[in-house]
Amino acid sequence: MAEKMFLETVHSEGLAHISYVIGHGGQAAVIDPRRDTDAYLDIARRYQCRISHIFETHKNEDYISGAPDLQRRTGAEIFHGEGLDWGFGKTVSDSDEFALGDMLLRVLQTPGHTDDSISIVLIDTAFSDAPVAVFTGDALFLGDVGRTDFYPDRAEEVAGLLYDSIFEKLLPLGDHVLLYPAHGAGSVCGSDMAAREFSSLGYERRFNAALQVADRADFIGRKTSEHHYKPPYFSRMEEYNQHGSAPALTELPNPQPMTPEAFQQAIDNGGVVVDLREPEAFAGAAVPGSLNIPLDMVPVYAGYLLDYDIPILLVVSSTDEVPTAVRHLIRIGYDRIDGYLHDGLHGWATEGRELQTLSVVTARQLKQQLESADTSRTVLDVRKIDEYSSGHLENAVHVFLGELPRRIDEMKAIDGPIVTFCGSGRRASIASSLLRRHGITSVSTNLGSMAACIAIGCDMVVK
Amino acid sequence: MAEKMFLETVHSEGLAHISYVIGHGGQAAVIDPRRDTDAYLDIARRYQCRISHIFETHKNEDYISGAPDLQRRTGAEIFHGEGLDWGFGKTVSDSDEFALGDMLLRVLQTPGHTDDSISIVLIDTAFSDAPVAVFTGDALFLGDVGRTDFYPDRAEEVAGLLYDSIFEKLLPLGDHVLLYPAHGAGSVCGSDMAAREFSSLGYERRFNAALQVADRADFIGRKTSEHHYKPPYFSRMEEYNQHGSAPALTELPNPQPMTPEAFQQAIDNGGVVVDLREPEAFAGAAVPGSLNIPLDMVPVYAGYLLDYDIPILLVVSSTDEVPTAVRHLIRIGYDRIDGYLHDGLHGWATEGRELQTLSVVTARQLKQQLESADTSRTVLDVRKIDEYSSGHLENAVHVFLGELPRRIDEMKAIDGPIVTFCGSGRRASIASSLLRRHGITSVSTNLGSMAACIAIGCDMVVK
Amino acid sequence: MAEKMFLETVHSEGLAHISYVIGHGGQAAVIDPRRDTDAYLDIARRYQCRISHIFETHKNEDYISGAPDLQRRTGAEIFHGEGLDWGFGKTVSDSDEFALGDMLLRVLQTPGHTDDSISIVLIDTAFSDAPVAVFTGDALFLGDVGRTDFYPDRAEEVAGLLYDSIFEKLLPLGDHVLLYPAHGAGSVCGSDMAAREFSSLGYERRFNAALQVADRADFIGRKTSEHHYKPPYFSRMEEYNQHGSAPALTELPNPQPMTPEAFQQAIDNGGVVVDLREPEAFAGAAVPGSLNIPLDMVPVYAGYLLDYDIPILLVVSSTDEVPTAVRHLIRIGYDRIDGYLHDGLHGWATEGRELQTLSVVTARQLKQQLESADTSRTVLDVRKIDEYSSGHLENAVHVFLGELPRRIDEMKAIDGPIVTFCGSGRRASIASSLLRRHGITSVSTNLGSMAACIAIGCDMVVK
Amino acid sequence: MAEKMFLETVHSEGLAHISYVIGHGGQAAVIDPRRDTDAYLDIARRYQCRISHIFETHKNEDYISGAPDLQRRTGAEIFHGEGLDWGFGKTVSDSDEFALGDMLLRVLQTPGHTDDSISIVLIDTAFSDAPVAVFTGDALFLGDVGRTDFYPDRAEEVAGLLYDSIFEKLLPLGDHVLLYPAHGAGSVCGSDMAAREFSSLGYERRFNAALQVADRADFIGRKTSEHHYKPPYFSRMEEYNQHGSAPALTELPNPQPMTPEAFQQAIDNGGVVVDLREPEAFAGAAVPGSLNIPLDMVPVYAGYLLDYDIPILLVVSSTDEVPTAVRHLIRIGYDRIDGYLHDGLHGWATEGRELQTLSVVTARQLKQQLESADTSRTVLDVRKIDEYSSGHLENAVHVFLGELPRRIDEMKAIDGPIVTFCGSGRRASIASSLLRRHGITSVSTNLGSMAACIAIGCDMVVK
Repeated sequence: MAEKMFLETVHSEGLAHISYVIGHGGQAAVIDPRRDTDAYLDIARRYQCRISHIFETHKNEDYISGAPDLQRRTGAEIFHGEGLDWGFGKTVSDSDEFALGDMLLRVLQTPGHTDDSISIVLIDTAFSDAPVAVFTGDALFLGDVGRTDFYPDRAEEVAGLLYDSIFEKLLPLGDHVLLYPAHGAGSVCGSDMAAREFSSLGYERRFNAALQVADRADFIGRKTSEHHYKPPYFSRMEEYNQHGSAPALTELPNPQPMTPEAFQQAIDNGGVVVDLREPEAFAGAAVPGSLNIPLDMVPVYAGYLLDYDIPILLVVSSTDEVPTAVRHLIRIGYDRIDGYLHDGLHGWATEGRELQTLSVVTARQLKQQLESADTSRTVLDVRKIDEYSSGHLENAVHVFLGELPRRIDEMKAIDGPIVTFCGSGRRASIASSLLRRHGITSVSTNLGSMAACIAIGCDMVVK
Repeated sequence: MAEKMFLETVHSEGLAHISYVIGHGGQAAVIDPRRDTDAYLDIARRYQCRISHIFETHKNEDYISGAPDLQRRTGAEIFHGEGLDWGFGKTVSDSDEFALGDMLLRVLQTPGHTDDSISIVLIDTAFSDAPVAVFTGDALFLGDVGRTDFYPDRAEEVAGLLYDSIFEKLLPLGDHVLLYPAHGAGSVCGSDMAAREFSSLGYERRFNAALQVADRADFIGRKTSEHHYKPPYFSRMEEYNQHGSAPALTELPNPQPMTPEAFQQAIDNGGVVVDLREPEAFAGAAVPGSLNIPLDMVPVYAGYLLDYDIPILLVVSSTDEVPTAVRHLIRIGYDRIDGYLHDGLHGWATEGRELQTLSVVTARQLKQQLESADTSRTVLDVRKIDEYSSGHLENAVHVFLGELPRRIDEMKAIDGPIVTFCGSGRRASIASSLLRRHGITSVSTNLGSMAACIAIGCDMVVK
Repeated sequence: MAEKMFLETVHSEGLAHISYVIGHGGQAAVIDPRRDTDAYLDIARRYQCRISHIFETHKNEDYISGAPDLQRRTGAEIFHGEGLDWGFGKTVSDSDEFALGDMLLRVLQTPGHTDDSISIVLIDTAFSDAPVAVFTGDALFLGDVGRTDFYPDRAEEVAGLLYDSIFEKLLPLGDHVLLYPAHGAGSVCGSDMAAREFSSLGYERRFNAALQVADRADFIGRKTSEHHYKPPYFSRMEEYNQHGSAPALTELPNPQPMTPEAFQQAIDNGGVVVDLREPEAFAGAAVPGSLNIPLDMVPVYAGYLLDYDIPILLVVSSTDEVPTAVRHLIRIGYDRIDGYLHDGLHGWATEGRELQTLSVVTARQLKQQLESADTSRTVLDVRKIDEYSSGHLENAVHVFLGELPRRIDEMKAIDGPIVTFCGSGRRASIASSLLRRHGITSVSTNLGSMAACIAIGCDMVVK
Repeated sequence: MAEKMFLETVHSEGLAHISYVIGHGGQAAVIDPRRDTDAYLDIARRYQCRISHIFETHKNEDYISGAPDLQRRTGAEIFHGEGLDWGFGKTVSDSDEFALGDMLLRVLQTPGHTDDSISIVLIDTAFSDAPVAVFTGDALFLGDVGRTDFYPDRAEEVAGLLYDSIFEKLLPLGDHVLLYPAHGAGSVCGSDMAAREFSSLGYERRFNAALQVADRADFIGRKTSEHHYKPPYFSRMEEYNQHGSAPALTELPNPQPMTPEAFQQAIDNGGVVVDLREPEAFAGAAVPGSLNIPLDMVPVYAGYLLDYDIPILLVVSSTDEVPTAVRHLIRIGYDRIDGYLHDGLHGWATEGRELQTLSVVTARQLKQQLESADTSRTVLDVRKIDEYSSGHLENAVHVFLGELPRRIDEMKAIDGPIVTFCGSGRRASIASSLLRRHGITSVSTNLGSMAACIAIGCDMVVK
């Protein structure tokens, strides 16, 4: 039996980032490695392959690239697209080819999301010289296309470039070609992505809403009218990834348990408490002033809420969560994690320390209030503007969660109690914790939020 | 190099039960196996040993013995002590010996905790015919001795038997002999056990408080004045373990996720919701009427609170907890676990269903109230009577948690709000959930409880 | 974020069998479950899904279906195709549909490989009512189509049915549709399969050699001229899988270590020793009379070589291999695995027992011999007839490994030494062990075999 | 329930080294950490403890200490004994004490094995101020005492020091005290150790053969007449461990798979092939000139056989062995592991490359030869001199395996075939591979060796 031509995915949860290890004949390539690269080495060893090639489909902005570290550990060469003054690796362009056993990888320049964007076409030479799959980075997703808001001065131009990349280069590869993008549903790099990870160019050509356009101009028009948020941490990622200058990750940080006393001391010294528990637990009892970022939301929201210079102090519900939290944080450059609270909230409580509690409001209670025209409470909707526009509670005030840190003063000016609100209650809990941290005390969280309001039939305002 | 003479412990968390796999020369013995026996097979395979002997130090009352299942899976013989009409296995008595490679196991009858109690003396014949270690079951623990309250009509007699077993049979083995009992700290089979698992007969002879007695009469006097609780589920375990009649455990139950709708349906059909989350999370938001038993407390308190005929419905914070909960429950005979709530509380909340919340009270708040002589709230102390007697808050009402189900009517008769209280707040949360389940609504939980009160310096009454 | 629509593969190595767990919205379906079903339960729990549907694409002949056991453990319904008197489950036909969240599964009857063959079309209703993927069972593979030799009396008819299934039903689903068959490279259910697991209908339409036919007649002509082997164990699998009558697999067998003495005793009592080590190790030293089946070859060759009524005795290089061997064996119905040799060959040798050694011959030695026209040694080529026909050493005698047990007498009649030969030397080692077991002593194994001969440039005869 | 006072062992297989993590109250100490320290961090996190103390019972000579790396990763302080010019850490002396929760650690200077040797006494202050356990490093083992041959000029003096340490300091702690040394059976740091890991001072006092002496002089006499081998790599370990100068181990080496061609190239460039497979497999077929060191024997014999400046090339039977081999090698300072052979021997053979085979001889064949007075073959016994002296085959030539590299010329001078011989055949295989590597072709390995000869009743010569 011939050796397997393998394609393995490595998911970075939260970031909804997908990297790939592909190989044949004792060689492997990694596409878009994340910062912690052990998973790639494990896969390569399983297939007895040497990692010889690393491809970056573009200068990633939402996480630190692991390409330099992976190169150091394996000796592989790094390849990027043209158009950037890279601090490391080699530049490739259209039609450059790389053979790994029977696998042939061909470069396709697919700019638009960024100028340096490339796609990697996979050909199984044992069968044909036609492509069987393509790795599209952030050019083409399942159900969406890449965002084109990174060059505000060239908005129409780059949207047009993306159109050309997709319609002139990718789709012509053929309906039968399998599609492997760099992100799945939940990424900040696009919206409307499918909650599914298998598709083909033909399926997307026909059913990806972003491709159902009249013409190039229509496509450009739609892209330039989209609204995207850019988390503040992106600029640091871009800097790192262009120059290969992120600190080498030879070891994962190893935060130590801290007694309540040491924990309080670290808070007094300026540390920020990040409570990784679920909103219900955070509402029940928490360390005063702590920020609630449920573990799986760290990759998406930490970059909006945490300062790189402030040491992070964790509250977890189980120490098993610490290594996961560490990976989430270092992937986006937060390397300073000073410790975690020994025995969690229970340890804190048994020392008789102060606890912060938070009220929760159910959708039914909210509905009653709205129907009674009681306006004493302000509903603060922290979803993205697109979500808000497509349906929200009457009189709800909108501030996107990621912008809340800069708009705290507005929040302080609100009269009366605030009920935080989002899609399901989890971002609302983050918002509540942030408000409380800034001294706004009359805050409650609407668990269930939009999903629950729909389920029980609240009236909605569109736009 | 000679093959290793191994001694591996298998802990059943919560039960604080310790079983042992020992072996040499390709053969192994298991001492006091629990119901789920896969761990023993894994250890035996690691050492390439055939499990040939199973010893039961006594008819265990706090969990289902795995001896019959382990016999079925390995062909090993089962050995018990005299004095019971056993439904399976063989009976051994003083000086019976079994050789496994260089390891010689000698039976020592050590009645007192039960009539059939035996200890197993381990001799390494490669070095000496003197004992090097002894497995004492529930006769002698680290820091305590076995309880002797199982034969109320023969209280003094059996206490005396235990004295003889310890002072005439075990201690004479020699100070140098290592001690391996069937339970560690946290077990319901004794109290005052050391939070340590390594000791010797000599260390216990000198520093085990229960052995520092004037004479046999003194020992008997102390033992007969002890107070122990006997959970209602013990009688079922005893029945099973005497006759080997527990259902064969060929597969672990496999509870399925249930939609909120199916979950509600199952509640309506008579199921009991057991919420395994931490007290803080339970306080924050819970399914109305659910019972809070934090996962690690299931082995000790489920047997007081759950009926064998009522299907169990789980609420977890992570699906990883389901297999652990299943093992905790089947070890004490709860095989009917119908499902768990899909997506937990978050799934429940996003459907807009009703939530139950619970107030928490801090030790500081309690202290203030007590100092202000505010008597509107009743402190309900649910610790064991021994804990209560050694120090409690003034005017605290005492009802042991295990007795609470039968004393709900008394609780309903209490005027005004109730604050539940225990050692650290976790049993208090169980109590609060039970009161709420029975319609008592004005209930709050004192997180931290006794530990916190001591930490901040509340006044205590010693009974 | 919406819940993920997942598609997970479960590989049964050796069988090259691929089963699938797919799901959405809290429900999951399993397609073609194998006998040991724990992997499906683990995946379902990871996604918090209830396994509600089980599909069998056809009555599998190469392994025992796990559908009945999986139904028992989950309550899921089982669905098969028409045309068989099934002993369990429900029969479905064209256009039957099943919804799991946004996922819609539609049945397509695709007979040919067997009459009851069905394919399952997957539609993501969130995007379109057009198919995105199809599970084709043994109708269409990557690089090949299913074998059609199971109804010898209807050879042309069923080949024609398969043509219709593929060209009239599957390919019309569209080039863009992803393809998920029940087998990959290495299966006995087809040949020429791709050493790759990702493809689409469009890619196969263009590059699958079996589909590049002039017309229906051409397809039928080619299929009916193929040669396939049918291992004797298939009939037992078919019997089991039609009636759901395989023994329930509540627990995996748990073979115990055996001392050399007990091992010899078990051999004397009629057991067969199966040595799972690599050919090099087997050549170096082995238990006399043992059969060498390297661990990963057990699924494919055990069914040719082992009798269901004879207890199996294992020799392993590490006890970690025992659980893998057990799974390999029970998947094809060998439940009687009596034990494994304690400490392997080393344990056997240190007791001074007899050892069997086997000579190895390198390709260079073979080449020299051939070039010197030395005909004293007979090269016994045990590959499949197709492999042999496409190139073999001059004067090599061909007997397919699977037929060797019935043709031992011919082998005994060969004069002079025999050199066994195959694709790379591993089947050759099995053959050598079989000849030795039957008293043919002058046997050596050509490590490297065909691959090595090609590498060093031996002369080859075609046909 | 109080927090557990834990004692966890970390075994370094092959080295038979045992390190310990002990702790209470949120703090932990590590005793004698090895170079790869991840295991300690994992244990500490499991108990939510901060590693605050690192103790080195002496300057270890048989592996690289992980103390500096562990300090870097945790901030813990390092403590050693007096009498050395340490390049790092703090020096402690008799009666220095350290509290970790209820656990009190007291230093006891116990020189003899080395001048700086200390023992750590463990006291559970919750029960008593008497010791419950002691960590004795290389002073006192189970069944033996430490070797005292490291100061040849002061042989009697240091043997006397060890006597005093054991009889004046350790044993007086009391019979009841549990014993935790730094090595178990199989270590090069002593012989006659028990194949058991649980004992007490009282048991050793009575049954440890090395302690059954008439008086101090008798003890000294015995110790100074012992024979120990000192592997050449010890001096590098001593240098590293005194100065803390071993390279920091931030990442484990990550050897890559190599094609047969690249492997041959690396051999030609001076690399040494280390074949980690079992002797039977090595005998069956091997890369010409390779050294056979079965995986578990690497820690003990690599230091005799491998040069630090020569790159190591591995042959494994499974890639799972690579990480284990890497750990074995880096623990003794072999950091340059250039790669492993892709697809092992099978990959080598299928390229038609040359194979080396080795004859094996059974004990029965050897016996026959000896009984027939056939002296054509030389039996080369490579055991330790003590083993040889206590019983060997007549006319067997003795050269300890560790000395064989320096005595190859003598071996070349032997007339006729050589049969290598040891305790069970595994060291014999190493010896055979070494002889073959140096051009001695007529070599065979006696699988089973001494153990088999005893089993079948060969005549033995004592002394």
